[in-house]
Parts: sequence; C-alpha cells; structure tokens
Amino acid sequence: MPAPIYLGVIGVGGVGNSFLSQLARLPNAPQLILLARSTQTLLSPTPSYTPAIPAADWKTASAEAQLTKSGALTPDEIAAYLSSAPGRSILVDNTSDPALASSYPTFLRRGISIVTPNKKGFSSDLSLWKEIFAAAAEGNALVYHESTVGAGLPVISTLRDLVATGDEVTRIEGVFSGTLSFLFNTFAPVGAASSAKWSEVVAQAKELGYTEPDPRDDLNGMDVARKLTILARIAGLEVQSPDSFPIESLIPKELADVPSTAEGIAEFMRRLPEFDGQMTAIKEGAEKEGKVVRFVGSVDVGAKKVRVGLEKFDKDSAIAGLKGSDNIISFYTKRYGANPLIVQGAGAGGDVTAMGVSADLIKVIQRLQ
Amino acid sequence: MPAPIYLGVIGVGGVGNSFLSQLARLPNAPQLILLARSTQTLLSPTPSYTPAIPAADWKTASAEAQLTKSGALTPDEIAAYLSSAPGRSILVDNTSDPALASSYPTFLRRGISIVTPNKKGFSSDLSLWKEIFAAAAEGNALVYHESTVGAGLPVISTLRDLVATGDEVTRIEGVFSGTLSFLFNTFAPVGAASSAKWSEVVAQAKELGYTEPDPRDDLNGMDVARKLTILARIAGLEVQSPDSFPIESLIPKELADVPSTAEGIAEFMRRLPEFDGQMTAIKEGAEKEGKVVRFVGSVDVGAKKVRVGLEKFDKDSAIAGLKGSDNIISFYTKRYGANPLIVQGAGAGGDVTAMGVSADLIKVIQRLQ
Repeated sequence: MPAPIYLGVIGVGGVGNSFLSQLARLPNAPQLILLARSTQTLLSPTPSYTPAIPAADWKTASAEAQLTKSGALTPDEIAAYLSSAPGRSILVDNTSDPALASSYPTFLRRGISIVTPNKKGFSSDLSLWKEIFAAAAEGNALVYHESTVGAGLPVISTLRDLVATGDEVTRIEGVFSGTLSFLFNTFAPVGAASSAKWSEVVAQAKELGYTEPDPRDDLNGMDVARKLTILARIAGLEVQSPDSFPIESLIPKELADVPSTAEGIAEFMRRLPEFDGQMTAIKEGAEKEGKVVRFVGSVDVGAKKVRVGLEKFDKDSAIAGLKGSDNIISFYTKRYGANPLIVQGAGAGGDVTAMGVSADLIKVIQRLQ
Repeated sequence: MPAPIYLGVIGVGGVGNSFLSQLARLPNAPQLILLARSTQTLLSPTPSYTPAIPAADWKTASAEAQLTKSGALTPDEIAAYLSSAPGRSILVDNTSDPALASSYPTFLRRGISIVTPNKKGFSSDLSLWKEIFAAAAEGNALVYHESTVGAGLPVISTLRDLVATGDEVTRIEGVFSGTLSFLFNTFAPVGAASSAKWSEVVAQAKELGYTEPDPRDDLNGMDVARKLTILARIAGLEVQSPDSFPIESLIPKELADVPSTAEGIAEFMRRLPEFDGQMTAIKEGAEKEGKVVRFVGSVDVGAKKVRVGLEKFDKDSAIAGLKGSDNIISFYTKRYGANPLIVQGAGAGGDVTAMGVSADLIKVIQRLQ
C-alpha cells in the first residue's frame, strides 16, 4: 500500500469545476482535504484530516456536514495546514491569481508539490521563476504546469523532454491563443473569401464566450506573451518579464485607455468599427502576396529573441490551415532538422485545460509514491 | 542523496548508439552495469557492481579493462544479474528482438523496469501484452515504450494521458511509417505534379537508406499494423495480434514469395517496375477526385475496428500536406471535439528514437527515486 497523498484545490471556476469532476473519477485519487474558492474554504478537520472532501463540485462538497468551514485563508495558513497532513501533499491552483502564484515558493519549501494551469508564477518576473524552482529543489517537491501553455496539449512536457535529453531547440513558433486563432481563422480564412469586418468578428467571438469579458485582455497579446515567456525560459533563455520583448497589441491606441468597466467595454465594442479599415488593409496586404495574416508568437533561441504579433503565412502552411480556435506549436530542433515537431489542437476550454491538470496530478502522484 | 539506480542496455545499433551518446550526457545518469550486443556482454564485476561501464560507445566500453566480459547471456541470466544489484534496476532494450521482448515479464516480476523502442513485446499476441503489465504490477516495476510508435514524438504518453484522465478516445488516425510517408509524399506530392514511377521512388528510398534492407518489410504494412495494435490496446481494444485486422500490403502477390536473400531482394527490385501500372492507376484515381493517396492506419474505437492501408485524402488535409518522412497522428476524443489533437514530425531515425528512450528513462528514474 503506497502512503496516502493529500490534496488541496483552490478555484472552482470553469477549469476548477472540470478538474473536480475528473478528479472524482480518477482511480487511486489522493484525499481531497482542502477546497477553496474566493471567500470560502472547506477543510477536513484536524488533526485526523478525515473525512476527505467529496470531489464532486462546490455545492456537494459544502453540503458535507463534517467539514470545517472557514473564510479565505492566507497562503501561509494553507501551506501550514497541508504540510501538517500525515503524508505528502499537493496543491492544485486552478485560479489565475498572481498573489497565490507568488506564494508557490512558500508551499514548495514546505514539501508541498504544485500542479497548476495558472501562468502567473512562471511568466512574471524572472526572480519568481528562479525562486519557485529553487524552493522545489529545497523542499524536495514537484512543480507541474502543463496547462499554462496550450491547455492539455503536450507542449511543456515535450519541450522539457527535448531539453532534458540534450536536443538543441533552435526555434519555437506557433499560435498560442485560442481566441486569436478563432479571430484570424474567421477574419482571414484560407479556403473561402470572407468579407467579415474585424469588429464583427470580435463581437461574434465575444458573444460566443471565446473572449475574456473585456476582449482587450486577449487583443493586447499579453496572454500570448506570458506563454512565450514560459517556453523561452524552459528553452534556456533568461527572459526578465513578459513585457521585456516586443508585443504587438491589437488594441487601437485610441481605445487603450477606455476603462475596463461594463460601460468601458461597451464603449470599446461600439468604437471598434472605426478601426476596421486598419485591419482590412493588413489582411488585403497579405492577400496580395498570396498569404494570410495570423497572430503568432516565436522564440528564436539562438538569437535570444522573443516576439509576439502579426505575421504573414503561405496559404498551404500548417499555421494558415488552422481551424476553429485551435493552437499549433512547432518546435524546431537540431535532432528534428528541417521539419519541426508539431503539436496541434484545442488550446483552451475547461475540459481540456483540466485534463492537463489531471494528467500532471497523476504524474506527481506517481513520483511521490 | 537518492539511492543509486542501475542500468542494463542491450543493443548497440543505430538507436542503441544514439542512446548511449545521449546517456553519456544525462545529468544524474544511472550507473551502467551491463552492455550487451548480439554475441558479447560487458558487465561491472560482482559483487560490488563497480566500476560502472563508461556510457560512450561499444568500443570505448569494451576497452575498459576492469569489466567482466562474456558471450551472450540468456534473459534469465541478465535478469538475475540486474536484480542482484544493490539498488533498483532498469533494462533498456534497444533491439527489435522478439525473444528478448517475450522475456519482459521475467524482468518485471523481479522488479526490473523496462524502457524500450522494441515494438515486439507490445504488438505480438495479446497474452504477452497482458502478462507484461501484470508482471509489472506484481514486481512493482515500470514499463515505458514511447518510441514504439512515432519514435520520440509524444504519442504513447499523450494517449495514456487522455485515457488516464477519463477522456473518451473515439478515433486514432495517421501516417505511422516514415518510409511509407516518404514514398507517398514523393510519388503523389500535393503541390507539384510528379511523373515518378512507383518502382523508381522505392529504389530511391532504398538507396537513401529510408527502407529496411528488404523494402518488403516496409511495404507489407506489418510495421504500421504493430503500431496500430499498440495504440488500439492502450485505447482499450483487445486486439488479439497485429494480423487480426485488415492490412493492405503493397507487395505485388507475384513477388511476395521471392526469398528475402540478397539475390531475392535484387530480383524483387528488378521486377517491381512490372507493377508500376497498378500504383499509377491508384494515384490517378485519387487525382480525378482532387485527392492524393496515402498509406495510413486507423483505429475506430467505438466500432472496435483497426485498419491499415491506402486511403484518399483532400489535398488541403493535414495528412496530404505531410513532408519528407514525417509521421502524423490525430487523436479524436470526446473532449477535443471535431478538431483532433495532432502530433506531427519525424517518426524514425536513430537520434529521435533514442530521444524517446532517454526521455522515458528519465521518467522511470524520477519515479524510482
């Protein structure tokens, strides 16, 4: 019998809920002893750390009478609780909270492993990245974050395998945002001509729930920049922060300062059509060369350059042929030669993001046992 | 300090040599205590199991004076030697030997983990597959075989993650042979018209070393059938053997019984042009529909059907657009919906196959420590 492993989970949004339902069906799942959302925390009572919390959803879990209930706990309090459990413990962070991410070293130093789709810890200041991995080594704890890039697609694990086995990664390139993939696949599709205006496509994506509540959080390229920061660092580049390289924002300058309130967002959407001409010109410029425009990120490892922005691609290229809101990531390496190793598929969505988290959790459990 | 881990390696061919050079540069590599090729074995002397064998190449290793030298050992003898080492041990099988593969249960029951690109253990009779995984559970040992499908591409690991996290894999489809990929990408390319005859393309591939010494070992589809057998089994189908489903052989019936000697192979190559008309007809039939022909394998999980053979694809499909000798593998699942998760890139070659082996070895070490 392997020793029991204890699990704390923070976040019950889209990814968090999908994760809980996957966790409930995992064979040999660890014992869920902490489940938190923004202002509420459920805990298995100390000192026995039993009963475990049913891994279904927040409602079912919070109806369990024998659990301790509390308001929000600080990261220090959560770390103290998990590290006193009678076995190894794992924290799954299903939030996008930068404050929690900046506390990962506290957890790791105490031997609590981290599994998360939260990009913040790995894509903020380089000092935090270094502190996280130093703390993991110090606490003999593990850090898995597959879903920080491309959701459940095998991106981080593939890159880590390439690096660990001594391959030389020369270039990473791809479409890293499901939202921007959808916008450009719809605005400038390869097969059929599209007369859709840029603002109409953005409005459609917003209605379908493909964008953040404020679409500018997609259009500013920061989400892509954070993903590129993570990949560049794994490939060995010391990227200081996600704004230490060129990012081409798709937000018209004139609309950048409109506040991100409900009224501000409405104003942004109302005024966006004024700028359709700019995007149409870019699209038609590409068409004249027989190409299509796409929003991509790239890491040139040799030249130590990271770039996020618009680029033109041949119509028969893999990037141009992307469908729906799919991501595509190409790894060019010394061993793979001229043709890259390519991973492609849905790079956003609760279920596939949670799948990356669940798969990481399984690997961490296997290593801790 | 983690406990030392001991390593035996069998096979010093193309993959074996690439693996040894990758092993030599791995940080925290396990101690190599057995290195074998067909008729010779090098061993660290018992009972100390020191010194370790230098992980460079056969010549360097066999020049090391302090090692024990022997002829070929039986699998039982190797298992006895490795299981008596003062720590956990791992066997890396870099051969394609079916006899060694059928002995995996012997190793696993004794607690020796297996890492291998050898397809034979996982694609022969279903009883061996079951015995391997039962023996691994019994011996608390691990089995990793990423490079049995698509070489170093993340195929097996991705499929296992999908299954382990509860996704429902509905269909797997792709080009699984680097050789057949090259043959059809050259014979029926998408962009430019090609007037090359089938027999010329086969001869060219043979000269480039892309085919087995006897090209019929590629053209019979058995290598693809073995890979499909492995994937189908991981997806949950009880495939009895790699010949228990339809395999379309590209060997003309009239040439199937020509012996596989040097003279026989020469005769096969000399007579292959007689059958060019058949392949041209197939190619032109596809072209009339605006398609190209490719040699693919597929697993339909719901219908429990595995199929290997020629199929026609739209010219703008990912399979049609494949380049060089690349593989492409598409996983259709419930979570990923209409657009599959796709992995693409070189699926053959010593370095990339060895990379899959090295990456597996790292994972096994991480789990044993």
